[in-house]
Amino acid sequence: MLSPDALQAYDDFLIELNRAAGEVILPIFRADLGVEDKHAGVRGADFDPVTRADKGAEAAIRRLIAEHYPDHGVIGEEYGEDRPDADFVWVLDPIDGTRAFVAGLPVWTTLIALRRQGVPVLGSIGQSFTGEIFIGHAGGARVQTREGSRPLKARAGVALRDAVIATTDPEGYFLPEEIAVWRTLRARARIARFGCDAYAYAMVAAGQIDLVAEGAALKCWDIEAALPIMAGAGAATSTWSGAPIGDAGGQMIFAGSAALLDEAVSVLQPAARPPFAA
Amino acid sequence: MLSPDALQAYDDFLIELNRAAGEVILPIFRADLGVEDKHAGVRGADFDPVTRADKGAEAAIRRLIAEHYPDHGVIGEEYGEDRPDADFVWVLDPIDGTRAFVAGLPVWTTLIALRRQGVPVLGSIGQSFTGEIFIGHAGGARVQTREGSRPLKARAGVALRDAVIATTDPEGYFLPEEIAVWRTLRARARIARFGCDAYAYAMVAAGQIDLVAEGAALKCWDIEAALPIMAGAGAATSTWSGAPIGDAGGQMIFAGSAALLDEAVSVLQPAARPPFAA
Repeated sequence: MLSPDALQAYDDFLIELNRAAGEVILPIFRADLGVEDKHAGVRGADFDPVTRADKGAEAAIRRLIAEHYPDHGVIGEEYGEDRPDADFVWVLDPIDGTRAFVAGLPVWTTLIALRRQGVPVLGSIGQSFTGEIFIGHAGGARVQTREGSRPLKARAGVALRDAVIATTDPEGYFLPEEIAVWRTLRARARIARFGCDAYAYAMVAAGQIDLVAEGAALKCWDIEAALPIMAGAGAATSTWSGAPIGDAGGQMIFAGSAALLDEAVSVLQPAARPPFAA
Repeated sequence: MLSPDALQAYDDFLIELNRAAGEVILPIFRADLGVEDKHAGVRGADFDPVTRADKGAEAAIRRLIAEHYPDHGVIGEEYGEDRPDADFVWVLDPIDGTRAFVAGLPVWTTLIALRRQGVPVLGSIGQSFTGEIFIGHAGGARVQTREGSRPLKARAGVALRDAVIATTDPEGYFLPEEIAVWRTLRARARIARFGCDAYAYAMVAAGQIDLVAEGAALKCWDIEAALPIMAGAGAATSTWSGAPIGDAGGQMIFAGSAALLDEAVSVLQPAARPPFAA
């Protein structure tokens, strides 16, 4: 366990990291609004705005970490691993939901986790366009908005037949056997929503979405920031086989309650597979 | 054509209507954030928050219209038709994307169109949580945010193979033959996004999404507010058979250019069907 003082210091630092990421990303998000000739930038990595925002934000976050905590490790989607075996390691995805970003949709997020001795102890899901940061650790979770801070609490007591469930894009991201079991899950749920990547995880913590399932394609930085938020909001988490979620990404379920998680595992388990190697 | 003065007056009124809708909806959106026992409200129309927000917002909009323009007609999703043959008719969907609303996702919108002699001449797509109102008429389109106003311009010159395309939920809303042609369209495009209802239309006007297609299940109030915005932003619109979009909803395509629209029509046309009767 982190001491309350250490936790507070890292929490403050998380807010600073989110602010730094937003300062890089926001000027690029929808930057060509109202511009007459914008298709020049559609293809080609050099001109790709999301790549620019992604790399720029990760570089900004890494600079701050190096400055404040030079002995900490960093694992990021854009710039790889740096001391991944350090006692404290920051796990970053500066823009989760790059396709949403490209499409101008305000559901991409900045994901930042702090691992201590391999275990994520603090995490944030930030959406700088809406001005929201969802933050959590084992002791609790909250959302900070421009108006203030509100606690987050997952919604318990909802059976699958009454549940609002979400995933990002089955046909785009799922294996064929994952698509098949997802369809069964969807058919048994009340409402299914798509396209929201980690923003949907935040909505599980907020008690708005009852269950999110993502498939084997998920990487560690897609998920690790969310785990302390789920813990703090009282959500239940597991792999598709019902095992604890490890540090290598892969199939996962976040649910408002252990009972709902169990219902989902029973449906998704036939397509369960071991996580990818990190 | 409306006179510039009349257009300005209706434009101001649209902003007022959006504000009134937001005042009803926002206190209900995610109202149970952090609340311990929230599943009591999950089922049952009486306790359904989205129904309450939807009806409350439409009632507020209708009150303002009756007060300012008592001779105008109104067609709304919640309270039906009132003088639908009047010279001026307001066509409303107070919360488009009710499933997104229920899931806490900030991509539901308030849709308001003004029809004159059967033709939509002014429209708005409002998202009061993000504080955005996308407004358009034949002479131009813009987005108003908390920071100010920016022009909207669809992105032309993008072929289908480079296009960002969107639809809400093929397996939830499409007919089997619509799903089949959508899959072909998706396979030929660069990026596909899901789950955004009319917010995706706004992103076509903003030049972020190149093409949106929705199926036969669409109602007139789902689409009519977007048509003047598309016209003002230079986007191209048609049914799946390439015909002009009428006043009864049904299959539609919004695209950044006529060339891209044609590409999509050639793919979607095999599933084209006449619109539902209004």
